[in-house]
Formats: sequence, C-alpha cells, structure tokens
Amino acid sequence: MISKNQLKLLRALAQKKYRKQHGLYLVQGEKNVLELLGANIPAEQLFASAEFIAKHQSQLEGINVIEADSDSLTKASTLTSNNAAIAVVQFPDTQPIDRAGMILALDGVSDPGNLGTIIRVADWYGFKQIVLSEECADHLNPKVISATMGSFVRVSVVRTNLVEFLADYDGAIYGAYLDGQSVHSTQFATQGVLVMGSESHGISEQVGQYINSPITIPAFGGAESLNVAMATGIILDNIKRGS
Amino acid sequence: MISKNQLKLLRALAQKKYRKQHGLYLVQGEKNVLELLGANIPAEQLFASAEFIAKHQSQLEGINVIEADSDSLTKASTLTSNNAAIAVVQFPDTQPIDRAGMILALDGVSDPGNLGTIIRVADWYGFKQIVLSEECADHLNPKVISATMGSFVRVSVVRTNLVEFLADYDGAIYGAYLDGQSVHSTQFATQGVLVMGSESHGISEQVGQYINSPITIPAFGGAESLNVAMATGIILDNIKRGS
Repeated sequence: MISKNQLKLLRALAQKKYRKQHGLYLVQGEKNVLELLGANIPAEQLFASAEFIAKHQSQLEGINVIEADSDSLTKASTLTSNNAAIAVVQFPDTQPIDRAGMILALDGVSDPGNLGTIIRVADWYGFKQIVLSEECADHLNPKVISATMGSFVRVSVVRTNLVEFLADYDGAIYGAYLDGQSVHSTQFATQGVLVMGSESHGISEQVGQYINSPITIPAFGGAESLNVAMATGIILDNIKRGS
Repeated sequence: MISKNQLKLLRALAQKKYRKQHGLYLVQGEKNVLELLGANIPAEQLFASAEFIAKHQSQLEGINVIEADSDSLTKASTLTSNNAAIAVVQFPDTQPIDRAGMILALDGVSDPGNLGTIIRVADWYGFKQIVLSEECADHLNPKVISATMGSFVRVSVVRTNLVEFLADYDGAIYGAYLDGQSVHSTQFATQGVLVMGSESHGISEQVGQYINSPITIPAFGGAESLNVAMATGIILDNIKRGS
C-alpha cells in the first residue's frame, strides 16, 4: 500500500525544487529499477508490484520494499506508463570532471527526452561521464532517467559553469556547428572536449569563443538540421570509429 | 473563424480511419506548413493566424485560407503546441519503389515519433524514399509529420508487403542486429536495402530470412541497445561516408 504521505512525496519528486529539498529522485519502470538494483545503488524506498518483488527477491535484501498493486503504482508514477516499480533514491555524490580522454559537454540542452537519449548513446559509446552547463535540463528529472533506459547508472553527470571550464581547458575543443569541418575527415584527438549546443540556439556565443575545432555532420539531402541527440550519437560514432 | 464542421474535420483527421475515409491529412505548425508551401504541395484548406497570413501572403495564392486566432488554432490542433497554421492536405499519390541506390526499409517501426525522426535523418542523408512494412505507424499521422520537421515534403513513403518485396529483391540486404558485422568495417554496396527492425522486437523472423548482410553498430560501453531512429541515423552516416 502506498500511504497518502508517500504518494505526496512521490508526486513532489517530479519537481526539481522538491528533489533538491529532499535530496531524493525517482527511478521508475521495470528496466530502470532493475538497472539500479544491478548497479547496487541503494534505494531509500522501493514501491513494487507483488510480481516484481517475487521475481527479483534476491536483489531486494536490505531495501525498504513496499508492495503496491499496479493501479496504485501507475497512479503514483510521474510517467504515463509504469506498473512495476518506483524507487526513491538519494542524490548521487558530486564528482570531479574526469579529464582523461574525450569529454562530452552539453551547452543548454533543455529537453529532458533529448538529455536522457544522449546519456543512453554516450553509454553505448563508453563515455562514463557527461558535463552539463547550468542551463541544461535537470538530469534527475524523471523523464531524463526514463529516457536513459538504464544508462543513468553507468554515466555520471557533472553540472558546471561550462564557460569557466572551457576557459581553463588546454586542448582540442570540438563544437558541433552547421559549417565546420566534416566529421568524416576529422582526425579526432584522443583527448579533448566535444560540445553540443541547445535544441533551439545551438552553441551559445560565450561557449563558442572557446571552440577551436568546429565540426559538422555532412548533409546529403534537404533537412536543415538534426535533433541534438541524433547529432551527438553520429558524432560519437565518428570519434570512436577511429579510436 | 474555424466553424464547428471544420473543427470536427480537423479533430477527425487525427485518426487514421477518418484520414483514409476523407483522403486527407494534417500538416501543423509554422515550420511544417512553410515546408509544404515551399514544396508547392497544394493545401485543400489552410487555417492560419493573421500574422502568418500577412507574413507569407505571396505563397498563399490559390489556397483556401481561413483566418483564425491563436487560441482557436491551438484548440483545433492535435499537437500540444501550435498557434500559427494548420493545413488540410490531400493524400500524396502512391509511388512505385525506386530501386536505384540504397533503399531504406522499416520493419514494424510503430512509434510515430521514431518514424518522423527517421524520415528527417533519411532526408539529411539524401534518401528520397522510405519503404515501410504494413505494420509500421501511419506516416500521415500528425505526430509523424510533426517529428519530420518538414522532411515529409522531400521523402516519399511507400507502404508495402516487405516480405514479398525482399523475396523478390536481388542484391545486398543489410539488416541491423546486435551481432552482425561492424558498420565501421562494412564496405556497403552502392545498391542494396537496409532494413531496420521494430522498437521492441527488432527485425521480424519473416523479414530476417532475407537479410544476407547482418550489421551492427559497435558498442563501447554498457547500454544494451540504441533507439531505432538513433541507430538508423548512425548507420546512414556509415553508408554515406564511403559513398
């Protein structure tokens, strides 16, 4: 049973200000909750169906599990479809930026679905961290977690003042533009930063002044642009194919 | 003013059965309607704000334009945000499959957002046609049109019995799997078919029997899979980089 107070907390955690206030975020749906359990990230509370509990009993030791029926879980969920499990999790520790290898940095990516999709494709290409400018969507937004399809447990997120970080960075700084060097002919450095801009404005001027290697995905047809998550995936593929 | 009967028609066209019955579909939002006008595809009716009409007067000759305020347009729209224009358009003519070059075929891609995103990235890479299995989402669904960001005017869609088409096709048939040859080392033929499978089940068994070149996007990290639209974009980039 989900109590009235518990339901109130779950609903509140859909909002950034209450996540911050409680230091808690939500992980919802079978796939994402199983990734959480598999990564041994402790849940404060786990609301789950009897079926889910029976199926994954061995992974639930030491966790405060509250059984609830599918209807209550769906009602409590902040997502449109969820009838298996909802975990309440403490904020991850903040981490320093790992300066080894290629760093993926996002400048003002504000759509939670895009951010989650980028975390997923970054995980596919073996990136263990993403750097976000302060204008990016909150990476603990339930829609972001959901769109990562479990990759949130493998990719840590550092939110920082991107302009200051880049001003201080010594090396190749690639930025995705519509008129840079083709990614098909770019020899990517093994160390560097790749900056992807926002959905509506691209890379901001302030960040742009630090880009020393503008790059472009060559177009062969009539579309004016690509979605930022799609563009990120294609560029990461070009970076990794040579590595 | 949008009359009661006009509103009824707009609402009905959100549904496939009424689109089929009337032979009409909707194009909504400034970007997509401008692409429609730019491509000289005649609209049966165009509902638009006074501002939109004033701004694009020169492109509206011969079109039945009905002025409406933003509130009415937003109310009439089947999308969450639209306050500029809604066009009612006749079904495009059915076209034969163009067998020259690489053919992109989708097997059961059922999410309208994914289908629209695939049409957009196909347009970016210069594909003028996409072949859909009969199980794919309706490409005239408003959510598909919206997600194409205007590319629906440049990419024609042929819906066909994909199994029969492939049975009859003589040449390289590539299919995206999780255990095929790396797309980084594949020398793609200049003529062939690329088949992308559905979100939940991948390529169906019936279609799979005709795939003679299974391919894979190499993974470097922990994510189990990529979204089908993302995977399509990455594979098209790999096909086009060698061309």
